[in-house]
Amino acid sequence: MGRLTAIVLGAAAGGGFPQWNCRCPVCARAWDGSIPARTQCSVAVSGDGERWILLNASPDLRSQIHATPALHPRGAPRGSPIAAVVLTGGEIDQIAGLLSLREGQPFDLFGTAETLCAVDANPVFAALPPDRVPRRPILPDVAFALPGGIEAELFALPGKVPLYLEGAARDLAGDPGTNVGIEIRRAGARLVFAPGAAALTPGLKQRLAGADLVLFDGTLFTDDEMIRTGTGTKTGRRMGHMPIGGPDGSLAGLSGLSNRRIYIHLNNTNPALLADSAERRAVEAAGWEVAEDGMELVL
Amino acid sequence: MGRLTAIVLGAAAGGGFPQWNCRCPVCARAWDGSIPARTQCSVAVSGDGERWILLNASPDLRSQIHATPALHPRGAPRGSPIAAVVLTGGEIDQIAGLLSLREGQPFDLFGTAETLCAVDANPVFAALPPDRVPRRPILPDVAFALPGGIEAELFALPGKVPLYLEGAARDLAGDPGTNVGIEIRRAGARLVFAPGAAALTPGLKQRLAGADLVLFDGTLFTDDEMIRTGTGTKTGRRMGHMPIGGPDGSLAGLSGLSNRRIYIHLNNTNPALLADSAERRAVEAAGWEVAEDGMELVL
Repeated sequence: MGRLTAIVLGAAAGGGFPQWNCRCPVCARAWDGSIPARTQCSVAVSGDGERWILLNASPDLRSQIHATPALHPRGAPRGSPIAAVVLTGGEIDQIAGLLSLREGQPFDLFGTAETLCAVDANPVFAALPPDRVPRRPILPDVAFALPGGIEAELFALPGKVPLYLEGAARDLAGDPGTNVGIEIRRAGARLVFAPGAAALTPGLKQRLAGADLVLFDGTLFTDDEMIRTGTGTKTGRRMGHMPIGGPDGSLAGLSGLSNRRIYIHLNNTNPALLADSAERRAVEAAGWEVAEDGMELVL
Repeated sequence: MGRLTAIVLGAAAGGGFPQWNCRCPVCARAWDGSIPARTQCSVAVSGDGERWILLNASPDLRSQIHATPALHPRGAPRGSPIAAVVLTGGEIDQIAGLLSLREGQPFDLFGTAETLCAVDANPVFAALPPDRVPRRPILPDVAFALPGGIEAELFALPGKVPLYLEGAARDLAGDPGTNVGIEIRRAGARLVFAPGAAALTPGLKQRLAGADLVLFDGTLFTDDEMIRTGTGTKTGRRMGHMPIGGPDGSLAGLSGLSNRRIYIHLNNTNPALLADSAERRAVEAAGWEVAEDGMELVL
């Protein structure tokens, strides 16, 4: 029986690191090559080492597949070990990579009804016709099976509707299906992937404490980081992401965890990306790691 | 006064080379690293070396910007030399990269009304709000100005409606705005970019003959190439692309050209990608080149 394996395909938040139009102090270090670049957030998991499931499909998916031998095509002339994609939301950095999975290859597409509807509201995704890429709507808090002997469960997270839908779909803002995390289970091993969380709830804390591996929202270190760096006008919480630092941050709120825990979905402004920063030292001193592209995690 | 410069950001057709799910004989050579990979088709042009215009926005745009120092951000904290994008159609490999140009950066988006409508029929492109990314509808055969002292003109090409719209928009199939080429002029220098042409017309031949540099549809070498390699069920012409070879191909039809001419938008199955193939020899013997990512062309 295989072991549960996860590969970080991309560790950065939407826009990637460095971001195409940004020379903030953190991006500048990536443009000059002094710290590793990171692509947009996605994780591949497998329970048997043969069939892989993508958690979100980032705009960088084509280059992520090229960089990951486990995901290279098998069989001739065509075939792929990618058996399924599970979406945790309908934001561009979570869905645009589906457009790189066209070309007639069958796989299953899982997500909440809200997320699958947000995808299919766009004519471009007709490039993945449902007879080859069946949509599998999933209710939060109900376990479902994934290829390779994996059991999974989506769960609602405090968050928000995708940015591009804010005007059109204000009524979805409080819907528990618009922003979810996923728990992946195989033979007693548990992984929780929660790349966007605006707050900690008692249920979320309990779920994270029960996992062997936590991949958690590390978008910003400080709630007003984008305002202070002149790169944006919104706080992290306004964007659906709680900060790492501060009295209300995830480091403080999750100080009771003792499992392996990794910050993922890091925004390009987050100083925890810098190996020599005070913020990185604070993260590591609390027992957390910072995700890098290509990290392989075996449970 | 600057010279007209073009950089090939991506030389491959939709899906790229190698393609994510393909181990055809040509892709196999790219997966094993023995010939250079190519990203999906896009060209950057500049008339002053400062402001750059993208001809199409491929799904690989983020990695293409990273690979091209001329397109790296300028100014702090945010800024970009990318001043405009011109679309020659609404196919996924022509538009999906727009999603990698979000993050509040202003630029102008040019294309026919048909193409701009196809883009904006997708809610995800609301990530580029028109107050920051104004849509500039362009009529074929009417010259328009681009930043950096460039004059441009779109022209109708025999082709087809985007694949994902075939069911929904059959009525657009004959519309001259659905598939265009572009002529770029600066101080007497002329470049023609025509990545998708189902046939040669007298007007097209005349336009190509008048250019200093031609970047032309090199999708397939043989019309039934995808059927014979077991990678598809359609001919090239059915997909809107005439073949390079054969009595009705572009090599024969354009044998009168004596300018610099380069095949671009190469499908992963095209044996002209292989430096040691008979098809590459035929192309080169006729005075044509095969595009590679990163090619810099100064007129």
